[in-house]
Formats: sequence, C-alpha cells, structure tokens
Amino acid sequence: MCGVFGIFDHPEAANLTYLGLHALQHRGQESAGVVSNDGGTLHGVRAMGHVRKIFTREVLAQLPGRIAIGHVRYTTAGGSLVKNVQPLSAQYRGRSIAVAHNGNLVDEDVLREELEAQGAIFATMSDTEVVLQLMARSGRAAVVDQLIDALGRIRGAYSLVFTTEDKLIAVRDPHGFRPLVLGRLRSESGAWVVASETCAFDLIEADFVRDVAPGEILVIDAAGPRSVMVPPAPRRFCVFEHVYFARPDSVLDGVSVYEARIAMGEQLASEHPADADMVVPVPDSGVVAAMGFARRSGIAFELGLIRNHYVGRTFIEPMDSIRHFGVRLKLNAVPKLLAGKRVVIVDDSIVRGTTARKIVRLVRNAGAREVHVRISSPPVDGPCHYGIDTPTRAELVASGQTVGAIAAAIEADSLGYLSPDGLRAAVRQTPGFSYCDACFTGEYPVQPTRPVGRRQLRLVEV
Amino acid sequence: MCGVFGIFDHPEAANLTYLGLHALQHRGQESAGVVSNDGGTLHGVRAMGHVRKIFTREVLAQLPGRIAIGHVRYTTAGGSLVKNVQPLSAQYRGRSIAVAHNGNLVDEDVLREELEAQGAIFATMSDTEVVLQLMARSGRAAVVDQLIDALGRIRGAYSLVFTTEDKLIAVRDPHGFRPLVLGRLRSESGAWVVASETCAFDLIEADFVRDVAPGEILVIDAAGPRSVMVPPAPRRFCVFEHVYFARPDSVLDGVSVYEARIAMGEQLASEHPADADMVVPVPDSGVVAAMGFARRSGIAFELGLIRNHYVGRTFIEPMDSIRHFGVRLKLNAVPKLLAGKRVVIVDDSIVRGTTARKIVRLVRNAGAREVHVRISSPPVDGPCHYGIDTPTRAELVASGQTVGAIAAAIEADSLGYLSPDGLRAAVRQTPGFSYCDACFTGEYPVQPTRPVGRRQLRLVEV
Amino acid sequence: MCGVFGIFDHPEAANLTYLGLHALQHRGQESAGVVSNDGGTLHGVRAMGHVRKIFTREVLAQLPGRIAIGHVRYTTAGGSLVKNVQPLSAQYRGRSIAVAHNGNLVDEDVLREELEAQGAIFATMSDTEVVLQLMARSGRAAVVDQLIDALGRIRGAYSLVFTTEDKLIAVRDPHGFRPLVLGRLRSESGAWVVASETCAFDLIEADFVRDVAPGEILVIDAAGPRSVMVPPAPRRFCVFEHVYFARPDSVLDGVSVYEARIAMGEQLASEHPADADMVVPVPDSGVVAAMGFARRSGIAFELGLIRNHYVGRTFIEPMDSIRHFGVRLKLNAVPKLLAGKRVVIVDDSIVRGTTARKIVRLVRNAGAREVHVRISSPPVDGPCHYGIDTPTRAELVASGQTVGAIAAAIEADSLGYLSPDGLRAAVRQTPGFSYCDACFTGEYPVQPTRPVGRRQLRLVEV
Amino acid sequence: MCGVFGIFDHPEAANLTYLGLHALQHRGQESAGVVSNDGGTLHGVRAMGHVRKIFTREVLAQLPGRIAIGHVRYTTAGGSLVKNVQPLSAQYRGRSIAVAHNGNLVDEDVLREELEAQGAIFATMSDTEVVLQLMARSGRAAVVDQLIDALGRIRGAYSLVFTTEDKLIAVRDPHGFRPLVLGRLRSESGAWVVASETCAFDLIEADFVRDVAPGEILVIDAAGPRSVMVPPAPRRFCVFEHVYFARPDSVLDGVSVYEARIAMGEQLASEHPADADMVVPVPDSGVVAAMGFARRSGIAFELGLIRNHYVGRTFIEPMDSIRHFGVRLKLNAVPKLLAGKRVVIVDDSIVRGTTARKIVRLVRNAGAREVHVRISSPPVDGPCHYGIDTPTRAELVASGQTVGAIAAAIEADSLGYLSPDGLRAAVRQTPGFSYCDACFTGEYPVQPTRPVGRRQLRLVEV
Repeated sequence: MCGVFGIFDHPEAANLTYLGLHALQHRGQESAGVVSNDGGTLHGVRAMGHVRKIFTREVLAQLPGRIAIGHVRYTTAGGSLVKNVQPLSAQYRGRSIAVAHNGNLVDEDVLREELEAQGAIFATMSDTEVVLQLMARSGRAAVVDQLIDALGRIRGAYSLVFTTEDKLIAVRDPHGFRPLVLGRLRSESGAWVVASETCAFDLIEADFVRDVAPGEILVIDAAGPRSVMVPPAPRRFCVFEHVYFARPDSVLDGVSVYEARIAMGEQLASEHPADADMVVPVPDSGVVAAMGFARRSGIAFELGLIRNHYVGRTFIEPMDSIRHFGVRLKLNAVPKLLAGKRVVIVDDSIVRGTTARKIVRLVRNAGAREVHVRISSPPVDGPCHYGIDTPTRAELVASGQTVGAIAAAIEADSLGYLSPDGLRAAVRQTPGFSYCDACFTGEYPVQPTRPVGRRQLRLVEV
Repeated sequence: MCGVFGIFDHPEAANLTYLGLHALQHRGQESAGVVSNDGGTLHGVRAMGHVRKIFTREVLAQLPGRIAIGHVRYTTAGGSLVKNVQPLSAQYRGRSIAVAHNGNLVDEDVLREELEAQGAIFATMSDTEVVLQLMARSGRAAVVDQLIDALGRIRGAYSLVFTTEDKLIAVRDPHGFRPLVLGRLRSESGAWVVASETCAFDLIEADFVRDVAPGEILVIDAAGPRSVMVPPAPRRFCVFEHVYFARPDSVLDGVSVYEARIAMGEQLASEHPADADMVVPVPDSGVVAAMGFARRSGIAFELGLIRNHYVGRTFIEPMDSIRHFGVRLKLNAVPKLLAGKRVVIVDDSIVRGTTARKIVRLVRNAGAREVHVRISSPPVDGPCHYGIDTPTRAELVASGQTVGAIAAAIEADSLGYLSPDGLRAAVRQTPGFSYCDACFTGEYPVQPTRPVGRRQLRLVEV
Repeated sequence: MCGVFGIFDHPEAANLTYLGLHALQHRGQESAGVVSNDGGTLHGVRAMGHVRKIFTREVLAQLPGRIAIGHVRYTTAGGSLVKNVQPLSAQYRGRSIAVAHNGNLVDEDVLREELEAQGAIFATMSDTEVVLQLMARSGRAAVVDQLIDALGRIRGAYSLVFTTEDKLIAVRDPHGFRPLVLGRLRSESGAWVVASETCAFDLIEADFVRDVAPGEILVIDAAGPRSVMVPPAPRRFCVFEHVYFARPDSVLDGVSVYEARIAMGEQLASEHPADADMVVPVPDSGVVAAMGFARRSGIAFELGLIRNHYVGRTFIEPMDSIRHFGVRLKLNAVPKLLAGKRVVIVDDSIVRGTTARKIVRLVRNAGAREVHVRISSPPVDGPCHYGIDTPTRAELVASGQTVGAIAAAIEADSLGYLSPDGLRAAVRQTPGFSYCDACFTGEYPVQPTRPVGRRQLRLVEV
Repeated sequence: MCGVFGIFDHPEAANLTYLGLHALQHRGQESAGVVSNDGGTLHGVRAMGHVRKIFTREVLAQLPGRIAIGHVRYTTAGGSLVKNVQPLSAQYRGRSIAVAHNGNLVDEDVLREELEAQGAIFATMSDTEVVLQLMARSGRAAVVDQLIDALGRIRGAYSLVFTTEDKLIAVRDPHGFRPLVLGRLRSESGAWVVASETCAFDLIEADFVRDVAPGEILVIDAAGPRSVMVPPAPRRFCVFEHVYFARPDSVLDGVSVYEARIAMGEQLASEHPADADMVVPVPDSGVVAAMGFARRSGIAFELGLIRNHYVGRTFIEPMDSIRHFGVRLKLNAVPKLLAGKRVVIVDDSIVRGTTARKIVRLVRNAGAREVHVRISSPPVDGPCHYGIDTPTRAELVASGQTVGAIAAAIEADSLGYLSPDGLRAAVRQTPGFSYCDACFTGEYPVQPTRPVGRRQLRLVEV
C-alpha cells in the first residue's frame, strides 16, 4: 500500500507535493518522501514518519524546482525496515531520475538475478530499482524509449511517477491494478498533477481531468501532456481499493468510493439480514457500509462504538500489565445505548479475527443481548501479489474455515460476508471492466514465474 | 477545559492514571501531568503535549505508589503559557499535597490579594494555588477540616482531586458545574477511581458507582470512602458538556451524552426543518446531532464531509502561500455525493463564524445547490466564567447579531439554532435539576465580585 | 554548584544572559534558566540540559525586557530530580519577583518548619524559596527592606541575583563563600552585569568593575547601583573555587585562578617531589597544576593522557558487556610516550578513588614503569554544607585512611597531597582574608542547628 | 576526512564497532554508520550526527552478526548533503556487500561516465559506489578477484573496509595516502580489527599488530588473515595526518603523532625564534606543537587561551546582533596572564585567516604587548585531491601572498611557518618513505585526467 503524487511546472512544486501527500496519508503512514527537480538536479528528502512531521518549513525550503514527485508508504517487513523509502533516485547515462512506485512487480526475483548476472549492483531491496536498471540497460537514448523497453520486461501491478530532466512521467500497468489520476490546478498556473486518488486534487484545488489509462505512459513537459500506450490487457482494478484502501471522497476509474461502500452495505443487508435493534459500525472503516446496511434494512444506525482519536498506530502500552486493554484504547462501547439490545456490527473485513473477537466482547460487555457481525467483502483466504501486505494464509482466520467456524472464533451470534457477486455489483463490475479479486477467488491475473515465498532480506536498513 | 482523574490503592496507580487520562484526552491536549503518592512522598511529571507522548514506559516507572492523580488541560493564554501545568503540588505544615483542578474560581483575584497581604507567595498564576494557600492558613489540623475551611472561602466551578498522606480526596462545587464521577475497578483490587467522565472507567474496566454530588467532599483512605457535604446550592451542571465537551460514550449526572445529542438533533429538526436532500454532519463534532436531525426529518444522513485523521491541532502550514488551504487540510467534501443537492450541514456551535463560512463554501464548491446550516445549541453571546475559554464578546459572531445576519456572514442559504428550551428538553432539565446556560442566557449563577477582565499575567512561563 | 548572572537595562537582556550562562556552563550542566523582566512582568524559561540546547532563537524571542537574570545548575539528587530548576519566580504582595541562587542555606529545615507553621505553602524543595517566603512575611513595603529582614534570618552560603519591578539586586553572604562580581558593558549601553565569575564578562565584552562584597546588597535601578551592607563576618571564600570549580581565566576576589593553580602545582612539587621522567596531567582538571609541578620540579610536562572531546557527562554505554571500558571512553594514554617511563600524574582531587585507580592502571598498561600521583589539594574527608555536593563521608576514599592506604587503594607507586598550608599560600591567604576549608579541616564557619542528614524529599519532580 | 573501522568474528561486533567509531569521532562528526554482517545478511544504520547520539542501545540491538564495519564522516558539500552517508551497501551477483571508505578517487568522473555508458545506475554521488560497480562488472567469481580487477582501474587515495559473505577485507591504496592499521583484541576472542588509527585499538583493548601496507588487500575469514599485494608505488602518506587530522595518541606508519608534533614545534622554534615572554597554544589544535616550541626556545608555556568545552561545531548564535562575538564563544583569553606580555601564539595551520585574526585581536585586547604567530606547517596554497576538503585557492589566505602580507592580514607582530624541510624532518621522512605534501608543494603524486572542478551535484539528499 502506497500513495504517489507528481506535479509539473509550479513555482511551489514541493509545497504542493507535500499537500498532495498529506491527502494521501491514509495510503501509508510509515514513511514519506519528496524529490524535487530543479533544472535536472534532483533534491530529495525521505524519512520514516508522517508527512506533517517530516516536511517542516525548513525541509521544504531545501526542495527547489518546478517539478516534484512524492510518495507515502506502509512498509511491510515487520520489525526491521527494508531500505526502500521512496521516491528512489539514481543517476545513469548522465541523467538523474527519480521514481515513486505504488504496486508490486511479480518476477522481481527473476529479473534481479538476470540483471546481477550482467554486472548490475542494487542499492536497495526494492522492486522499483529493477525498473531503473532495465531502463539504464536499454540501448535507446530517449527516456521514454528506455521506459517502453523496461515495461516490456516487467509484469505485475504498478502506478509509477517519474521525474527526469524537464519531464514528469506517469505510468500505469496494463491491467490497471492500482489507481492513478490526472488533474490540473485551477489557479492560473494550470500546473499538471498526478496522484493515486482524486482526494489529493480536492485539497490543492485541482480539477480532475481523467484517469491515467491502464497501459498508458503519460509524458508531461513544456509541450504539454502526451501519451504512449503499451499493449492492452484485461482491466483488473483492485476491488479492495473500494472496500477499504481508498478514501471515501475519492472517485477511482469512474466509481465513487463512497457510493460503492453504501452499495456494499445495502447488498450485504439484502444477503445477510439480521433481526436486530441497531446497526453499529466499527469506526472508521465500517461507517459508510453500515449506513448502507441501515438504509436497506431499515434498522436504526447508531454510533455504538466511539473511536479514541488520540491513539495512533504507534501506540505502545507502557507496561506489560496493561497490554490486555488492547482494543479498548482505540474503541469504547456506549453502554447506555447498547444495553439489552440486539446489535449488528459492520466492518469492511476480518483478517486474523483477533480484533473482531475483541470488538464482539466489548459490545457484549456493554450489555448487548445479541451481536451479529456483517462484513462488506468476501472472506479473504489468499495472499495479494499486487502490492497489499496480507498475512500468510495460515494467519488468515478465513483460510479453510467455514463461516460458522469463523463466527464461533469471533464469538458472534451470527456472521455474514458480502458475496463476491454482491461486491461486484456494488462496484459496478461490467463485462468490459472487471476487478482483481484474486485474494478471495484465487484467480490471479498475473502469475509469478516462481512460487512466492517471503523474500529473504539481504540488505536490512534499521 | 480540563480533565481530572484519581485512583486509590492499586499497585499500578500511575499506569492506570495514564490510561484514565488517555480516555480524557479530548478534554485537553495541551499539557498533562500525573502525581503519584508513595507513602506520603509525591512524585510528579508534568509536560506540554499529549498523554501518550509524555508518559513513556521510562517516565511511568518513576512514579511509584498506590495512589495517583492526573490532569489534562487545554491552556488558554495564547502564545505564551502560564506556569500552571497541573497537578499542582506543594508542601505545607509538613504535609505534601497535590491537586488536579477542573473549573474556574471567581474572585480568585480578590482572594489572591488578601492572601498576599498576609505574606503568602504564589509560585503560579493558577487559581488552584489559592485553594492550597487557604488550606495552609486554616487553623485546623486535619486536612479535611482545612479543606472545608478553604471551600468556605471560594466560589465558582471546581471539580478537584487531591492526594496527601494516605488519602485520595474528590471535591465538587455546590452547583456541580463540572462533572465528576466515582467508580471501582472490576478486578480483585477493587481500587476506587474518580474521573471527569465515565468513559475513563470503561477503558480501565471499572464500574460506575455514582456521580460525586455537588457540594460533596469524598475522602477515600484505607477505611474506604466517606463523605462530608458542604451547604447545598441550586444544580447548575454546564449544558455545554452535553453539547460538545464530553465524549458521547459518557453518562454525566445520569444523562447519556449520546442520547442527549440525538435528542438535540431531533429537536433541532422540529424547530428548524429544511427542505433538503441530505443531512451532512461536520465531523466529528456534529455527527450525533446530525443523526438525530436525519431521524426526525426523514432526510438521508450522508457523510458528505470527510475528516483527514492525520491533521492534529498543531498542524502548521509550512509555507505562507499555502496557508489559504485552511479548513481543506482537515475536511474534504465528497463531490460525487453533493453535486446538485440541497444539503443540511449540522454542527454543535458557531464561534467566530470563519470556519463555518469555509465549510459552507467547501460544500458549495463541491456542487451543492443549497446549503442550510443547523446548530444543535443556541447562539453563544457571552463569556463563560466557569472554566471554558471563550473568545471575547467582540469576536463571537452571534454577539449582537440577528440570525439572519449570521446566516449572511457564513454565506448559508438558511441558518437555524436550537432554542434554549429545545436544548433544555434534550438534556432533560427538570425543575429540580437545571443547567448552567449563562453563555447564551446571561444568567450567571455565581457573579464575580469585580468585573472580569482578561487577567494580567505577571509570571509567564514559556 | 551553580552559576548566576544578571543584567540591567539592555535591549537584548535575555540574549546577553544567554551568553553569560554559556560562559558559566562549567558551573552546572544539568539545567539552566532565564527570567526576563519586561516592565514588571516576568517571563521565564527553565529546562534540563545545556544552555545552547535550551535557548534557541525561538525561545529567546519570548523573553522580552531590559532586565534579565539566569542560572545554571548541577542537580544533586541522583536519579530523580528535585523540582528546583532556577531561577525561581513568585508573586507576593502584588509584586513579581525572580531569584537565582548559588550556595546553600544551613537551617533551611528549621526555617521551613517555622514558615509552614505560619501557613506558608512551599511549591519546591529548594532553600531559595525560603528566602522569598521570609521576604513576603516582612512587615515592610520596600523590597530592599524585605530583603534585609530575610537576610537577618538566614545563614550559610549564598550569592543571589534578584529581579523585581524595575530593579536588579545582587546579594552576597557575609562570609563571601561563593563568588559574585560586578561589571559593565563596554558598549555605549553601559549596562550593568553581575555574574559568578569574570569569565562571563570577557565573553560579552564587559569590564570587570569589582567583586560584590561579602554582606553587600547591591541594588541597581535607573538611579544606578547603590549598596546596603549587612553586618560583616570573617571572610570565608571557598578555596575549592580555586582548586577546581572556577574557570582558569577567572579572577575571583582579586586572585587569578590560573595563577593560583600554577602556584598549587609548584608548591606540590616542593612538598612531594618525585624522581620521574615526565609530569602528565589528568585533562582538563589537572593541567594548570601539572604545569606548575613541571616548572618547579624541572621534569618534562607531557600530555600523556588524551581526552576524548566527544564524550559528554551523559555518555551511556549502550551495552552492559562494554560498560567495563569505563574511563577509557574519556581518556586514552599515549603508549609511545609512556612506555618504560616513570610518570607523575597530577590531578586536582580524589573523591571516591575509583577513577584515580582506573587512570593509574591505564597509564601502567600503556607501559609506564612507575606511576606517582600528586594531588593539588589536601585530602577531603568531610562534607560541604555550603553548596557543593560531596559524597557521604563513607564514600570518600580519604575518610579515615592514611595516605599510604589511599596510595595502595589507587595502586599508585606513591601519592602526595598538597598540604593545607601549601594550598593557603597558593591562594594567597592573609590574616585578613582566610578561606573556607572546612571539607579538609573540619572547621565549619557556619554550623547547622540540627545535624545534617540527607534531606528527605517529599516532592519529587521527574 | 573520514574514519573507518572493521571487526571480524566477535559476538558483539556492532558494539565494538560503535566503540571504535567513538575513538575515531575526531575524523568526522557529521554522520556515522555501522553495517553488521549476520551470516551474509547485512544490517545497516547510517545517520547524521555524532556516534553516541545515533547508536543507542536500541539501535545497536538491531545489528546482529559477528562481523561489522563502521564509518564516520565529515561531509563536504556545504548546506545540502550529498546522499553518501557510509558504509555503502549493495547487492550484486547474489552477494551482499558493504564498504566504508576513507579517501578520494581521482578520475571518478571518467569511470562513472564509462560505467553509465555500460548501463550502470548510480544510487549515490559517492566515488565509493564506483568501486562496487567495477567489482560487479568483473568477469571473475571470487570477491577478491573482483576487487583486484576494480583496484586495477582506480587511482587516488583510499583506505577501504569491506564485509561480504563470511569475510572482512581491508584495502589500502598503493601510495598509502591514508592510514589503516590492523589489530587484535586482547580478550580470549582474539577478534581481528582494522581501523584508521591506533587510538581505536587502545579504547577496545586491542593490540596493534601492524599497519596495513600500501597496496595490500588484507582478507580475513575463518582461515585467518591473508594478503594479496597489488603493484607497489612510492610511499605518499599524507603529512597533514600528523599535522592535525590524527589524534596525538595514535601511531601511524611507525611514527607517533605526539612525537611528530613535539618535533614540529621544536623545529619551528629553531626556524622562527621569537623574543617573547610566553608561548600560548591555540587549544586544542596547537597544544602539542606549542609544547615543543616552548621546550626548544626555553620560553614559558602558558595556557593563555581557554577553550569553552560546551561549544560544539553546531553552535548557532541565536540572534544576529550577537553574532559578532564569534570566536569568543569558543576561546577566552586569560587577561591576568597576558597583560603587558610578549606572546607567541602557536597553531597548526591558517586557512582563511579570519579565525587567526580574531585570536590575535583577542590576545591583544587581553593586554598582550606583542603577538607573534607561529604555525607548525608550511603555508597551504593548493587543494587536496586525496580526501581533504580544502577551500578554493581564492579563499586560502596563503595563496599568492607573502608571509609578510599574511602577518599584516591577521594583524600579528610577526608570523613564521614551519618550512617544508622542517616538517619532513619532524615526521622523519626518509628516502624510502616520503610523504604527500602536494597542498604546499604542488607536487601531486596522482594527477586527475581531467581538470578538477567543484563537482556538479545531480542527486542531492537533504
């Protein structure tokens, strides 16, 4: 999970990139980076932490230039951190280049071996570096030609934003797994912007122009934007962007995330009705779907779980003896509301099941008579090869279990998952535009050549 | 605005106080402090910032003892900070004592002059120190007697939690302006706890026992809790605790905050209906009232404004040129949802009117056809003398203006405030239990002897 | 051990105080504070750490006014820190006042009891607060009269700098235990300054005017400086200021610290000659005395021990297993120089003996054939009651031991201490100006009324 | 200017590397890094700042493995920092490798162009990466063979420490420009260590074994150390290591730095005697040479300038108006000592001349009658191509000026520089072992192919 941003030709390019990353912060909170391009010289800042902590006024003042790209990321390797805070920058054939990447290449291992056999050295463990190495080895002179050559070798999910020389380049893989949108500042500058989600445009007062098309190489320079298309492939936009990654105020590939989530909740209510007194979302992930569920079912929507806004992801219990307070630090049930009631809890997904069980207990301890859990997506029982960090199959509570067994595991009185077809309807799948749903159907649009293991890290950056 | 907490007789007193403050963080984010009592020796930590940043494992390890009190505060003096991060600790007549205070004394200036004339020196500009000075000057030996003497001299709003020697003492002023509740840990320790709100009990798995009564001095020591009552006064619980200070999962003086807010929204819909397509709350302050409004009116409830969770109070725009993005950094409108619609925006209050105007514009720019604003409390046009930091009358948009003029100022198509009687009904005012609503009625239950000015600071702590 | 500074009537009073504290940093590295006086309103900053870390440009900008005082301190209570970072500020009888204190009152416990019996509350465990309480209880109106009354009650060592209203006030106790000097800026401002040592004047380009006299109350306001004298007492300037507290570039009570240390080394060489190949100082404490020793003895002066400048007091070994490297982190011997040589190591004092033993071993391991230790002061075997934090008698290696036994304990081939008379000669004691040398003679000029124990802390600030 | 360290086969390899870097901190204070090797997986930490700030207990705990290398550096590009905090780590041909580099390659630009033409991408602007790229392109399988191939292509100054697979490899260029020494832990582990200077061995209780020879590739693995020699070249050890880079307690290529500095001072006194009352060193750089000067001249050695130990390199004057205090913040003259005296000031070098002029003024303002400056090295009037960051020729005060003109510029009564022959004698130059002294003789042992400009940065890391 990552977010990318780019801007072409604005005197405050780095500042607007900062704002864009700010709006994309939900796509990655572990690290962030900005590279500005000042007449071909690249100036970069990358650090662990939140956008607003890293990019102080002093730091931004050191990022000159009218072009900039940015990246937010959620690093996956637990504990120690792979050395790949992005954007990645490099120099080859006299050219300085930087790239921000959202997605995941399959066969990165195969390509890396091949490149290393040719004498390449890798400074990072990131698959993004493979793209740059392939470009550097292209026999052709123009950066766009080098990029076309490189894209001919890679497979998988990628939305890439480059800057080099006098250009901003945005690329989306032929399946269109990850979102990427083009916009333009409303101000007289008319600067072009690209971003992972439209919510970044709203913040900086840019108009949405269009989605970057799957397979498109969009080159923006002083002559304006122009496109090169690589050979097409079936559309496979990640359905989980709608389920939970994207912000509800974004519109992705023509579909409003908010509307999709309302529709998921409505569909869920039709598929798995419940005889209950109230519908309570798990905040904030389940709120919009819960509204849909309440509308369709006619059951009252109540905020029976209150989120503590002052707990970040990094909250560490200071003493072992109070660690068991667990989910309570983030959520509190409203006893007056729940006491004696039959409650439907709505959330977007269940991963390991431990949090779900804690929430069920929390609601029951607050006095609820019955607790019914409804999930606005199908059970996930396979890994994602396209950029989402999922636990191993063994850790997934849905893996190889019946819904009844899962309900028992999380101690719910009943449990219902949205069906795959229900989800497809909610996100308006059409014959011409289908989604990637490999993680619950097992139908992977792009297969890795070698079986995928947890990668063995050889270069670990603390 | 402050939050207080206290615990008696638990081996991890400071850790549980930390958790309690965590649950009360919404009552003050500027500073926090904990004082633990280890056999009469007081160990204190006070610092600027959020509870979870200040109280690391290492810091908590330095707070031994089975009794502890804590405090979160929102400091009022703009720019420089008065030296009164709490709890306040002191030594007098060989006794060490610490106190955490929520509220505001009237006549603090008069008492301070009197005490200074007697040779008292004040280490802080806090009115809390006046209480300790009065206790030190009591002729009596027992701390409870000293406290009774001191309370006989002070007027205003106060919920106080003390620790000294082997005791935890909780005090609430005779009018009961500010909340204070008593609970008991469910675990075998059965430790007694007091807190500003019941939500602190939920977090630490304590049962609510009862409200500390207005005028009650509750002393807890090895012999258990016992009470002394000072002469009674009319109940004057601050109605704005229900409107916006308290967390919706708290129950204060017998009234559920959540239910009160739903009722405010319902009442508001009855008083000021709107012909509209959707009800949209300002997150998070207007959410519960908006739900009530939607229910009573039958208009669809939609999350048309999305809050950016990664913006704290301390967000500083790094460049002047992007300062005008203002409220956009915190809120984004959902264009797909609002386009062409007639929208009711619900919030809890309007102070200066600048934020309200920005929100109206944001919604209108997202395509809304009409924007109707509904506020779940009456117009505030006077200052609070009882612990709330309100702007001066001149800064209050409602001061001396008609509702029509305010609507024009915030650029709304219509504007409706909940009536005083509507609010009273929502919070279930009865003849025997009326609320303090001085800030919109001008009926101040306790009048300061001298006209209140902005206090002149003589000791400023940076 | 502390350092104090004050300045009267300069537009950058806080900035110059910052510089003054910088020059006095050697007198205390644990905390620092500045209080500026802006027309009677006091603005204060106090924090743990070094002067240059605490007082950033932003912090200094919040300290307006033409008068300022400052303080650096080395806190004594191990582990947890008493809440008495200075300057101390307070309000009494409508007057704001702040004070910085270098020294130690005897009978602080007796006075505190008396004041508490009168209803005083103490916000700190600092003896400085006693002075303010006594001033507040004076029946007289003028602050100087209040001060005279207070000084009539206290005994011990004190160099105090106050600011209140439009005044800067400097006070030195009748014995003159601690240094205090008066100077004047060379610039056209001609602002008056007071400081613990003259080296602070050199930094800010002020001329030394004179020492503040023992028993003098020096009041500086718009009318210029004027003095009030309290009854005199025998001069008892702390001889250890010359041995190791003061900076060698300071001149205290007419005696150059540098010259005094040279003389100590010369005297030491006369009293305890050594048949050796080189004189090696322990850097930096023993350097000047070692130069004197080398001069008088004719033995070569060599820097056989090199100090690592990058180790601060706060150096913490990151792993237990490397803790034994101990003193090596601070000092390294020069093997090429020491191999096969007979070495005289010169230092200013020995406290517990553990560091001395490590240094002897370090030098011997570097190949020295003989290691003779010479100390430029007499053996310290008693506590200081006047402001120096000494270990308990039991921890002092010199307590109740013969010099031979100490030599054996530190593994030196020989050991010589400067005699009391030798030290007196070096610091030019005259019949009319004798020094306090209680810590090695046991003749305490001011005796505490009660036996002194380690104070029991009742208010501990973490 | 950098320092390198490596250790082979110790259970606390990273901890000892931390200590080694600590002892080498004087060779670079801007950044530091450690890479540990845990069975072929490399774990790295690199950061701006001092060793003891970066490597906390927590950080070191994340660096497992029995082999480790480390680096301290002083970055040269003013303001913004090139992205080359070391050690550099990379992966090529399935092998993870890390390297720490002290020195500077000539022709790095030529090699970089050649490598980029072959498709190499560079992640950094560091010449060290060129070495890795050359190794990766070697046709041979063994890392030592790859290294031999790479060294065949590079010229200039380099002391390199690598770790890969199960090996620690130390390399020194054929001229031996920069120091590199081999040692062995005294403890039973007998672990091998390499470092820039012997002072690192003293700290960790390792014995000096020998210098790594110019042109030596020293490979240490489970079979013990073995060496491969590349073709020899004339010895050209940097004479300025003895003048000021190295710590006086180090012994480099058989010469004691301390003894060399004493000899420089003695020689200087013979060449440029002064009729004066005292010899005063600029602390700490001029201390040892001043001792030599005093010995040879018979003039008294006095510490007339006192260094303020609490001013780091990062000291920033908080207010513009006090910036002119300049050098006073670091040094103070001792007025009592200097008044009326004829003073010889000894320092190791003069660069721009501005600091020297300030010191002369400081001493004169303290009352000195005459100020004679003596410098323990010849005038530097050319750049260094071998790893020292010198200002441009235009900034060097000695460039194209007579000594008389320099004396006038720094306002000294007289000025004397040590002659080139005098310096050679002091460092014991022999026909078989001559030093690099290009910066004052203009005789560069290795000439860059292209004229050297200030490199144009294309990738700037903030």
